[in-house]
Amino acid sequence: MSKVRALVLEQQHKLALRDIELPLDVGPGMVKIAIHTVGVCGSDVHYYTHGRIGPFVVNEPMVLGHEAAGVVSEVGPGVTHLKVGDRVCMEPGIPDPNSRASRLGMYNIDPAVSFWATPPVHGVLTPEVVHPANYTFKLPDHVSFAEGAMVEPFAVGMQAATKARITPGDTAVVLGAGPIGTMVALAALAGGCARVIVADLAQPKLDIAAQYQGVIPVNISENNIVEAVSALTEGWGADVVFECSGSPHAWKTIVDLPRPGGAIVVVGLPVEPTQVDIASASIKELRIESVFRYAHQYDRAIALIASGKVDLKPLISETFDFDDSIAAFDRAVEARPTDVKLQIRVAQ
Amino acid sequence: MSKVRALVLEQQHKLALRDIELPLDVGPGMVKIAIHTVGVCGSDVHYYTHGRIGPFVVNEPMVLGHEAAGVVSEVGPGVTHLKVGDRVCMEPGIPDPNSRASRLGMYNIDPAVSFWATPPVHGVLTPEVVHPANYTFKLPDHVSFAEGAMVEPFAVGMQAATKARITPGDTAVVLGAGPIGTMVALAALAGGCARVIVADLAQPKLDIAAQYQGVIPVNISENNIVEAVSALTEGWGADVVFECSGSPHAWKTIVDLPRPGGAIVVVGLPVEPTQVDIASASIKELRIESVFRYAHQYDRAIALIASGKVDLKPLISETFDFDDSIAAFDRAVEARPTDVKLQIRVAQ
Amino acid sequence: MSKVRALVLEQQHKLALRDIELPLDVGPGMVKIAIHTVGVCGSDVHYYTHGRIGPFVVNEPMVLGHEAAGVVSEVGPGVTHLKVGDRVCMEPGIPDPNSRASRLGMYNIDPAVSFWATPPVHGVLTPEVVHPANYTFKLPDHVSFAEGAMVEPFAVGMQAATKARITPGDTAVVLGAGPIGTMVALAALAGGCARVIVADLAQPKLDIAAQYQGVIPVNISENNIVEAVSALTEGWGADVVFECSGSPHAWKTIVDLPRPGGAIVVVGLPVEPTQVDIASASIKELRIESVFRYAHQYDRAIALIASGKVDLKPLISETFDFDDSIAAFDRAVEARPTDVKLQIRVAQ
Amino acid sequence: MSKVRALVLEQQHKLALRDIELPLDVGPGMVKIAIHTVGVCGSDVHYYTHGRIGPFVVNEPMVLGHEAAGVVSEVGPGVTHLKVGDRVCMEPGIPDPNSRASRLGMYNIDPAVSFWATPPVHGVLTPEVVHPANYTFKLPDHVSFAEGAMVEPFAVGMQAATKARITPGDTAVVLGAGPIGTMVALAALAGGCARVIVADLAQPKLDIAAQYQGVIPVNISENNIVEAVSALTEGWGADVVFECSGSPHAWKTIVDLPRPGGAIVVVGLPVEPTQVDIASASIKELRIESVFRYAHQYDRAIALIASGKVDLKPLISETFDFDDSIAAFDRAVEARPTDVKLQIRVAQ
Repeated sequence: MSKVRALVLEQQHKLALRDIELPLDVGPGMVKIAIHTVGVCGSDVHYYTHGRIGPFVVNEPMVLGHEAAGVVSEVGPGVTHLKVGDRVCMEPGIPDPNSRASRLGMYNIDPAVSFWATPPVHGVLTPEVVHPANYTFKLPDHVSFAEGAMVEPFAVGMQAATKARITPGDTAVVLGAGPIGTMVALAALAGGCARVIVADLAQPKLDIAAQYQGVIPVNISENNIVEAVSALTEGWGADVVFECSGSPHAWKTIVDLPRPGGAIVVVGLPVEPTQVDIASASIKELRIESVFRYAHQYDRAIALIASGKVDLKPLISETFDFDDSIAAFDRAVEARPTDVKLQIRVAQ
Repeated sequence: MSKVRALVLEQQHKLALRDIELPLDVGPGMVKIAIHTVGVCGSDVHYYTHGRIGPFVVNEPMVLGHEAAGVVSEVGPGVTHLKVGDRVCMEPGIPDPNSRASRLGMYNIDPAVSFWATPPVHGVLTPEVVHPANYTFKLPDHVSFAEGAMVEPFAVGMQAATKARITPGDTAVVLGAGPIGTMVALAALAGGCARVIVADLAQPKLDIAAQYQGVIPVNISENNIVEAVSALTEGWGADVVFECSGSPHAWKTIVDLPRPGGAIVVVGLPVEPTQVDIASASIKELRIESVFRYAHQYDRAIALIASGKVDLKPLISETFDFDDSIAAFDRAVEARPTDVKLQIRVAQ
Repeated sequence: MSKVRALVLEQQHKLALRDIELPLDVGPGMVKIAIHTVGVCGSDVHYYTHGRIGPFVVNEPMVLGHEAAGVVSEVGPGVTHLKVGDRVCMEPGIPDPNSRASRLGMYNIDPAVSFWATPPVHGVLTPEVVHPANYTFKLPDHVSFAEGAMVEPFAVGMQAATKARITPGDTAVVLGAGPIGTMVALAALAGGCARVIVADLAQPKLDIAAQYQGVIPVNISENNIVEAVSALTEGWGADVVFECSGSPHAWKTIVDLPRPGGAIVVVGLPVEPTQVDIASASIKELRIESVFRYAHQYDRAIALIASGKVDLKPLISETFDFDDSIAAFDRAVEARPTDVKLQIRVAQ
Repeated sequence: MSKVRALVLEQQHKLALRDIELPLDVGPGMVKIAIHTVGVCGSDVHYYTHGRIGPFVVNEPMVLGHEAAGVVSEVGPGVTHLKVGDRVCMEPGIPDPNSRASRLGMYNIDPAVSFWATPPVHGVLTPEVVHPANYTFKLPDHVSFAEGAMVEPFAVGMQAATKARITPGDTAVVLGAGPIGTMVALAALAGGCARVIVADLAQPKLDIAAQYQGVIPVNISENNIVEAVSALTEGWGADVVFECSGSPHAWKTIVDLPRPGGAIVVVGLPVEPTQVDIASASIKELRIESVFRYAHQYDRAIALIASGKVDLKPLISETFDFDDSIAAFDRAVEARPTDVKLQIRVAQ
């Protein structure tokens, strides 16, 4: 164990930038990474404000942060595809490769997965971390650390776009223009959709999404989304609807949005069981897919960013120094509609 | 129009076996069929007892019956694959081949489909009917008319089994051992499942299903279905769960039944919007499919019956003469748990 | 029958711009279209130079042209989604909606399909044509006729991209940078690929493809394509390889290009049976898909063009007046490597 | 290392039942199994008669045998799903769980897989073996060791049936009625096919396959397979064709067997590159899948055997004592058409 500086959530409502003991031994198949940039995620903020997310409770001090990029500083035995000095980003979840889910290729739904900044596992708002090389991905030279730290939330969008099984030229709807909804919209466009209708109540969020070619914003404080989708699709409906609001309200009309034989992809999770109009969904033979984090998306996400098909830079609203980490979290708590992603630069 | 004898639902609660005017001209692409056997379906019975199903209301006298087999008696111009004397069964739905859904191959969800014994369309409890040859299917010599009239409900099971995308050797659960649940169980077994756990409260229904190799009956008045499925799958869960009960109660625990990455196929339709635990479904990345009637299943269903892989004969509980049609319906209203399918022999 | 002017292929090597009798009655479900722009396709040119393509032989004078856009000038009974004045493009193939393949949604492989400018069916290098409304697609205001006439070849690319079942972020290879290879590359990028490695011997063709973001050109007169793909994918291989050259030579190494579990999509057709290394393909469990024209791609193709995700305008090399049609074909026969698509403007 | 008795292939043509040093330490995640029954596979025989299979050459003495069942005799640390005394069968391939292919769920095409009785890896014709618990599968009480040793070849059939993506009620063709063709036919039937047309030149092989309900034998020394399939499918073609003969001759007509939009699954591997009529395959938009061993099939295969849907017992032609192992191999070399599977009982 080494004593290192870290942003520690001591308990609900209480953050400290202080020293803590963390393991930094580099075993076989592992690499050590000097952390450069870490994004502030809604789940980090939620642990700060609520002290828990569902069954995951902060009972002990925990380092926050799981959207990270950095530089490889040490390479363990048996690692061949990375070397010291490689600029990288990391998947925050470490599955058991021998679990049944992992062997089937679905390591994201392995119940034994260990995930950064999910109690009791520490996150990476700290200068160094040791991580499996298999879940550490090289960044091309022209992809910045800031973009690298955006790969994690974008990977959620990629998982949703993959589950949708988009046919090239599809029309999609994204309900909710928060950070995840925006990531899903970009992944859906990069993943084959011709256009994505993005629906939200907050105009500033829609304005940010509408910067991207192919996004059609619909302000649902002024427009009926069912009518808007019908008008844009000549009464046929959308091929895919991504539910990213997590609001039970969205489920009241969601089955009216897809075309016959279309799909709904659930990304936002309502806390409580939610009323679903199963009969109406069945009359159109809808397919409903659900998403939990991501698997096998990092290399694909990086490829799309590197080739210029996806530009995440406009979504980075402000960058804080590591010393200002607590200010970054307090700003995130404000939930300004013009903020998409706040980042913390850990490296000097 | 020709005056013919038919079982007419005059209005809710009132059946009559009487003469009625029906069109019997054989146009291009059409065939006339002498009806031999017609099954009594739950929807026929529901129109009798309730006068409506959802938006479909019996406002005018309507001939009942849509599960039918018979003999081709006349062939219209342009029909090449059928000839007079062919023993056949018929799909009760006639889609518009030029609709968008039909052109995409999903004619079952064409909103313009015309379906026998769905107001205001007459059914086929009458000696003759004219039907499109494309939706009329030849029965092999060794498949009886009674089996031919079972193809319609079995096709619903086939649609469910197809939507499930079964991987050979899957373990399935069927919730509800009524006629449709039983059909789904048989289609799932024929369609690749190694075993099907069938759950119901009524032991006589389970006893009928349990006659079939591969069916594992679970009486849920005595057993917890979640525990039963867990025990039978070493804690992993079922690959596919078919919801055939239509009960909102089933949705309380249904997400606990599939394995990570598994599927739920909705066959039974709850009347009201139903509470669904979306978060729990998402943590396992479940896929939910829904079924509305069937498309492209008749030839496949007949092939499975003809090859001996599916034996529907044990499910025919009793056969009534055409003159006793009303008695058949009154027996169906009793809903005896030992009755799976009642049939009416229209031909002498 | 009406006497109209048309570009007629009298026989091999002999074109005439002359009057010919064509049927122009507008029946139910049909529309009449004033042709604006028609692209010159390799198959048109091949009939001109060879008088046949495989079993299709030019035995009678035949109007050429099947890549067309224009304006609706008359609407037949029962047509609801089009009106006079609508700017449109048209699918050149007219299937039988009641055929088995069409009912399954695969109308492109209906053997009874009637296809423009495929003997003995006339094409549309003529001022007017009557066509089924179901295969006539409205162009958005900001999509030009020239782009509308490009939808046909782009639809071939779309069919290939659809068959590939691209996962968002895939890396593809396209063998052959002719007009179809270029269309496939653009469809693959729009359909979800992060990058497409395009291989050809002709540098001018590669230069045209390389204008598009995401295209990585490889000149195979100077580079080994297997090594190039391996280097670009860190030894893993491409997710999808599109064979668009039609050359038996391409098949010698094609199985070395995809990753384990990857796919090959066959677009270019070798004339003769071709040697395939089946054992090597099997050791990687490759999937091979094939493409014949397209089905259900026009609306998707138009949506991608309309949203700006696909820009076909740089591929229109030169536009000829209708009076210069024969000059357009003679230019096409030259097969200049800098020519992608030549078009003829039929409207004044 | 322990000195144990084993059937050793000393070099081409030379077998010995003798002592050899093998490692029998039981590490973490491993189990030791007392071998009960081992099947003789064509690849074992091929090493005996040819000394090599493709790039795999017998340069050192190697224990033969990879189709095995037995009893767990010792359990390593961390193993939870198996205990001493469990009756089991084993997958002969041990992949690297951290390889890229394994993480994607395709461990069978991991190039680093270590496979029993594939040089230089020893097989299991010996009384004991140590194996990863994850690739060791419990047999239900009513499944015999003999059946357990048949799971390996049946898993190849399962992989083929899985890759085919059978729709319930499909009609399949299997070319070649050797042991693998027969396994594929049974897996295709269990996996959803209504009927399987099995083609071979040897009537005794067809007679064995024809014992199973749903198999339609076609002796191609007397019948044209294209005509037979066309007649049985009313001119439409088969949904899936499994090529199990490995003969280049089969490829001459194989594209004429599937229906439009149908599939070919390659199981038998021709040694040399083979002529394929790619143009004819494309006109029908055929899909070609290939199979290399199997992944994730053992539990599914056992489930089908356990539920009675698949009965492999009639395929066990004769069982030899361990002391008669060499006689078993010499009998296998005879290749009697009435022999499907020879087995060796290693346990006393």
